[in-house]
Amino acid sequence: MQSKPAQDDKQAIRESVNTWLAASKKGDLSTLLDLMADDVLFIVPGKEPFGKEAFAAANREQMKNVDMDATIDIKEIEVVGQWAWMRSFLKLSFTQDGKTAQHSGHILNIWQKSPNGRWVIKRDANFVKPD
Amino acid sequence: MQSKPAQDDKQAIRESVNTWLAASKKGDLSTLLDLMADDVLFIVPGKEPFGKEAFAAANREQMKNVDMDATIDIKEIEVVGQWAWMRSFLKLSFTQDGKTAQHSGHILNIWQKSPNGRWVIKRDANFVKPD
Repeated sequence: MQSKPAQDDKQAIRESVNTWLAASKKGDLSTLLDLMADDVLFIVPGKEPFGKEAFAAANREQMKNVDMDATIDIKEIEVVGQWAWMRSFLKLSFTQDGKTAQHSGHILNIWQKSPNGRWVIKRDANFVKPD
Repeated sequence: MQSKPAQDDKQAIRESVNTWLAASKKGDLSTLLDLMADDVLFIVPGKEPFGKEAFAAANREQMKNVDMDATIDIKEIEVVGQWAWMRSFLKLSFTQDGKTAQHSGHILNIWQKSPNGRWVIKRDANFVKPD
Protein backbone atom coordinates (compact mmCIF):
# COMPACT_ATOMS: atom_id res chain seq x y z
CA MET A 1 0.00 0.00 0.00
CA GLN A 2 1.29 3.42 -0.85
CA SER A 3 1.66 6.27 1.60
CA LYS A 4 -0.85 9.10 1.63
CA PRO A 5 1.72 11.67 0.39
CA ALA A 6 2.59 9.46 -2.60
CA GLN A 7 -1.12 9.11 -3.41
CA ASP A 8 -1.54 12.89 -3.11
CA ASP A 9 1.42 13.40 -5.44
CA LYS A 10 -0.01 10.97 -7.99
CA GLN A 11 -3.26 12.87 -7.89
CA ALA A 12 -1.38 16.16 -8.33
CA ILE A 13 0.41 14.73 -11.38
CA ARG A 14 -2.92 13.61 -12.85
CA GLU A 15 -4.15 17.16 -12.34
CA SER A 16 -1.09 18.54 -14.15
CA VAL A 17 -1.85 16.14 -17.02
CA ASN A 18 -5.47 17.30 -17.16
CA THR A 19 -4.37 20.94 -17.08
CA TRP A 20 -1.91 20.17 -19.90
CA LEU A 21 -4.58 18.57 -22.09
CA ALA A 22 -7.10 21.35 -21.47
CA ALA A 23 -4.46 24.00 -22.29
CA SER A 24 -3.46 22.08 -25.44
CA LYS A 25 -7.05 22.05 -26.66
CA LYS A 26 -7.44 25.77 -25.98
CA GLY A 27 -4.09 26.67 -27.50
CA ASP A 28 -3.08 28.16 -24.14
CA LEU A 29 0.69 28.08 -24.63
CA SER A 30 1.60 29.97 -21.45
CA THR A 31 -0.11 27.33 -19.30
CA LEU A 32 1.77 24.60 -21.20
CA LEU A 33 5.08 26.36 -20.60
CA ASP A 34 4.28 26.66 -16.87
CA LEU A 35 3.95 22.86 -16.76
CA MET A 36 7.53 22.35 -17.95
CA ALA A 37 10.79 22.58 -16.05
CA ASP A 38 12.95 25.39 -17.46
CA ASP A 39 15.40 22.79 -18.77
CA VAL A 40 12.73 20.39 -20.07
CA LEU A 41 13.70 18.15 -22.98
CA PHE A 42 11.32 16.47 -25.40
CA ILE A 43 12.73 13.37 -27.06
CA VAL A 44 10.86 12.39 -30.21
CA PRO A 45 11.60 10.26 -33.30
CA GLY A 46 13.63 11.78 -36.10
CA LYS A 47 14.99 14.94 -34.50
CA GLU A 48 17.31 16.09 -31.77
CA PRO A 49 15.86 16.55 -28.27
CA PHE A 50 14.43 20.05 -27.90
CA GLY A 51 13.50 22.38 -25.06
CA LYS A 52 10.99 25.00 -24.05
CA GLU A 53 11.73 27.61 -26.73
CA ALA A 54 11.56 25.13 -29.59
CA PHE A 55 8.34 23.69 -28.14
CA ALA A 56 6.82 27.18 -28.04
CA ALA A 57 7.89 28.02 -31.58
CA ALA A 58 6.53 24.73 -32.97
CA ASN A 59 3.30 25.09 -31.02
CA ARG A 60 2.69 28.62 -32.30
CA GLU A 61 3.32 27.49 -35.87
CA GLN A 62 1.48 24.17 -35.85
CA MET A 63 -1.61 25.10 -33.89
CA LYS A 64 -2.71 28.05 -36.06
CA ASN A 65 -6.31 27.47 -37.11
CA VAL A 66 -6.24 23.89 -35.85
CA ASP A 67 -8.76 22.34 -33.47
CA MET A 68 -7.21 19.69 -31.28
CA ASP A 69 -8.76 17.01 -29.17
CA ALA A 70 -6.77 14.76 -26.84
CA THR A 71 -7.35 11.76 -24.62
CA ILE A 72 -4.75 10.11 -22.45
CA ASP A 73 -4.58 6.68 -20.84
CA ILE A 74 -2.21 6.88 -17.87
CA LYS A 75 -0.73 3.40 -17.52
CA GLU A 76 1.41 3.95 -14.41
CA ILE A 77 2.85 6.65 -12.19
CA GLU A 78 5.72 6.07 -9.76
CA VAL A 79 6.50 8.83 -7.27
CA VAL A 80 9.89 9.02 -5.52
CA GLY A 81 10.25 12.10 -3.35
CA GLN A 82 10.40 15.18 -5.56
CA TRP A 83 10.57 13.05 -8.72
CA ALA A 84 8.14 10.83 -10.57
CA TRP A 85 7.96 8.88 -13.78
CA MET A 86 4.83 8.14 -15.78
CA ARG A 87 3.96 5.91 -18.72
CA SER A 88 0.94 6.75 -20.83
CA PHE A 89 -0.72 6.41 -24.22
CA LEU A 90 -1.88 9.62 -25.87
CA LYS A 91 -4.40 10.05 -28.68
CA LEU A 92 -4.66 13.36 -30.49
CA SER A 93 -6.92 14.52 -33.28
CA PHE A 94 -6.22 17.66 -35.29
CA THR A 95 -8.97 19.22 -37.36
CA GLN A 96 -8.20 21.87 -39.94
CA ASP A 97 -10.31 22.99 -42.91
CA GLY A 98 -12.77 20.19 -42.19
CA LYS A 99 -10.14 17.44 -42.29
CA THR A 100 -9.19 15.43 -39.22
CA ALA A 101 -5.88 13.66 -38.65
CA GLN A 102 -5.40 11.13 -35.85
CA HIS A 103 -2.10 10.79 -34.03
CA SER A 104 -1.23 8.46 -31.18
CA GLY A 105 1.64 6.90 -29.31
CA HIS A 106 3.26 5.89 -26.06
CA ILE A 107 4.97 8.37 -23.75
CA LEU A 108 7.45 7.86 -20.94
CA ASN A 109 8.06 10.99 -18.96
CA ILE A 110 9.87 12.27 -15.91
CA TRP A 111 8.18 14.78 -13.62
CA GLN A 112 9.74 17.03 -11.03
CA LYS A 113 7.99 18.71 -8.11
CA SER A 114 8.82 22.40 -8.26
CA PRO A 115 9.39 24.48 -5.11
CA ASN A 116 5.82 25.83 -5.37
CA GLY A 117 4.47 22.26 -5.17
CA ARG A 118 3.44 22.00 -8.81
CA TRP A 119 4.57 18.96 -10.77
CA VAL A 120 6.28 19.88 -14.04
CA ILE A 121 7.63 17.85 -16.96
CA LYS A 122 11.40 17.39 -16.92
CA ARG A 123 11.92 14.83 -19.69
CA ASP A 124 9.40 13.52 -22.19
CA ALA A 125 10.11 10.56 -24.48
CA ASN A 126 7.26 10.85 -26.91
CA PHE A 127 6.36 8.31 -29.62
CA VAL A 128 3.18 10.07 -30.77
CA LYS A 129 2.92 9.97 -34.59
CA PRO A 130 0.24 9.97 -37.30
CA ASP A 131 -1.88 6.78 -37.19
CA MET B 1 27.34 18.88 -4.91
CA GLN B 2 25.99 15.38 -4.82
CA SER B 3 26.23 13.03 -1.89
CA LYS B 4 28.76 10.20 -1.94
CA PRO B 5 26.02 7.51 -2.10
CA ALA B 6 24.43 9.19 -5.15
CA GLN B 7 27.86 9.31 -6.83
CA ASP B 8 28.42 5.64 -5.99
CA ASP B 9 25.01 4.78 -7.44
CA LYS B 10 25.77 6.71 -10.63
CA GLN B 11 29.00 4.79 -10.95
CA ALA B 12 27.13 1.52 -10.37
CA ILE B 13 24.65 2.43 -13.12
CA ARG B 14 27.53 3.21 -15.49
CA GLU B 15 28.93 -0.23 -14.67
CA SER B 16 25.56 -1.84 -15.47
CA VAL B 17 25.59 0.02 -18.80
CA ASN B 18 29.11 -1.22 -19.56
CA THR B 19 28.13 -4.77 -18.61
CA TRP B 20 25.09 -4.44 -20.89
CA LEU B 21 27.15 -3.30 -23.87
CA ALA B 22 29.79 -5.98 -23.36
CA ALA B 23 27.10 -8.67 -23.11
CA SER B 24 25.35 -7.32 -26.21
CA LYS B 25 28.57 -7.56 -28.21
CA LYS B 26 29.18 -11.12 -27.01
CA GLY B 27 25.58 -12.21 -27.56
CA ASP B 28 25.39 -13.07 -23.85
CA LEU B 29 21.62 -13.00 -23.46
CA SER B 30 21.50 -14.30 -19.88
CA THR B 31 23.60 -11.36 -18.66
CA LEU B 32 21.30 -8.96 -20.51
CA LEU B 33 18.23 -10.53 -18.88
CA ASP B 34 19.86 -10.19 -15.44
CA LEU B 35 20.15 -6.44 -16.07
CA MET B 36 16.37 -6.07 -16.49
CA ALA B 37 13.64 -5.91 -13.88
CA ASP B 38 11.27 -8.87 -14.26
CA ASP B 39 8.53 -6.48 -15.39
CA VAL B 40 10.79 -4.40 -17.65
CA LEU B 41 9.14 -2.66 -20.60
CA PHE B 42 10.87 -1.50 -23.76
CA ILE B 43 9.06 1.30 -25.57
CA VAL B 44 10.13 1.68 -29.19
CA PRO B 45 8.66 3.26 -32.33
CA GLY B 46 6.07 1.33 -34.29
CA LYS B 47 5.19 -1.47 -31.92
CA GLU B 48 3.58 -2.09 -28.57
CA PRO B 49 5.80 -1.97 -25.47
CA PHE B 50 7.34 -5.38 -24.84
CA GLY B 51 8.95 -7.21 -21.93
CA LYS B 52 11.67 -9.67 -21.07
CA GLU B 53 10.40 -12.69 -23.03
CA ALA B 54 9.86 -10.74 -26.23
CA PHE B 55 13.29 -9.14 -25.82
CA ALA B 56 14.87 -12.57 -25.48
CA ALA B 57 13.03 -14.00 -28.49
CA ALA B 58 13.97 -11.03 -30.69
CA ASN B 59 17.57 -11.10 -29.49
CA ARG B 60 17.93 -14.83 -30.27
CA GLU B 61 16.48 -14.30 -33.74
CA GLN B 62 18.21 -11.05 -34.71
CA MET B 63 21.68 -11.71 -33.37
CA LYS B 64 22.30 -14.99 -35.20
CA ASN B 65 25.55 -14.68 -37.16
CA VAL B 66 25.70 -10.94 -36.51
CA ASP B 67 28.67 -9.06 -35.09
CA MET B 68 27.61 -6.05 -33.09
CA ASP B 69 29.55 -3.06 -31.89
CA ALA B 70 28.11 -0.41 -29.59
CA THR B 71 29.11 2.91 -28.10
CA ILE B 72 27.05 4.97 -25.71
CA ASP B 73 27.17 8.62 -24.72
CA ILE B 74 25.55 8.98 -21.30
CA LYS B 75 24.12 12.51 -21.22
CA GLU B 76 22.78 12.54 -17.67
CA ILE B 77 21.93 10.29 -14.74
CA GLU B 78 19.69 11.34 -11.85
CA VAL B 79 19.55 9.06 -8.82
CA VAL B 80 16.66 9.26 -6.33
CA GLY B 81 16.88 6.61 -3.64
CA GLN B 82 16.29 3.19 -5.20
CA TRP B 83 15.35 4.75 -8.55
CA ALA B 84 17.23 6.56 -11.26
CA TRP B 85 16.64 7.92 -14.72
CA MET B 86 19.19 8.24 -17.46
CA ARG B 87 19.34 9.91 -20.87
CA SER B 88 21.81 8.66 -23.43
CA PHE B 89 22.64 8.38 -27.13
CA LEU B 90 23.46 4.91 -28.41
CA LYS B 91 25.29 3.97 -31.62
CA LEU B 92 25.19 0.39 -32.85
CA SER B 93 26.77 -1.29 -35.84
CA PHE B 94 25.68 -4.70 -37.06
CA THR B 95 27.93 -6.66 -39.40
CA GLN B 96 26.64 -9.70 -41.25
CA ASP B 97 28.01 -11.34 -44.40
CA GLY B 98 30.53 -8.52 -44.71
CA LYS B 99 27.90 -5.77 -44.69
CA THR B 100 27.63 -3.24 -41.88
CA ALA B 101 24.51 -1.34 -40.89
CA GLN B 102 24.63 1.64 -38.52
CA HIS B 103 21.82 2.36 -36.09
CA SER B 104 21.60 5.16 -33.54
CA GLY B 105 19.21 7.07 -31.37
CA HIS B 106 18.34 8.66 -28.07
CA ILE B 107 17.26 6.65 -25.04
CA LEU B 108 15.47 7.67 -21.85
CA ASN B 109 15.39 4.94 -19.29
CA ILE B 110 14.36 4.25 -15.73
CA TRP B 111 16.58 2.15 -13.49
CA GLN B 112 15.70 0.39 -10.25
CA LYS B 113 18.11 -0.78 -7.57
CA SER B 114 17.36 -4.42 -6.90
CA PRO B 115 17.59 -5.91 -3.37
CA ASN B 116 21.02 -7.36 -4.22
CA GLY B 117 22.30 -3.83 -4.95
CA ARG B 118 22.46 -4.22 -8.72
CA TRP B 119 20.83 -1.55 -10.86
CA VAL B 120 18.44 -2.99 -13.45
CA ILE B 121 16.41 -1.46 -16.28
CA LYS B 122 12.76 -0.94 -15.44
CA ARG B 123 11.55 1.12 -18.44
CA ASP B 124 13.42 1.94 -21.64
CA ALA B 125 12.14 4.46 -24.18
CA ASN B 126 14.36 3.70 -27.12
CA PHE B 127 14.56 5.71 -30.34
CA VAL B 128 17.42 3.74 -31.88
CA LYS B 129 16.80 3.17 -35.60
CA PRO B 130 18.78 2.66 -38.82
CA ASP B 131 20.81 5.77 -39.74
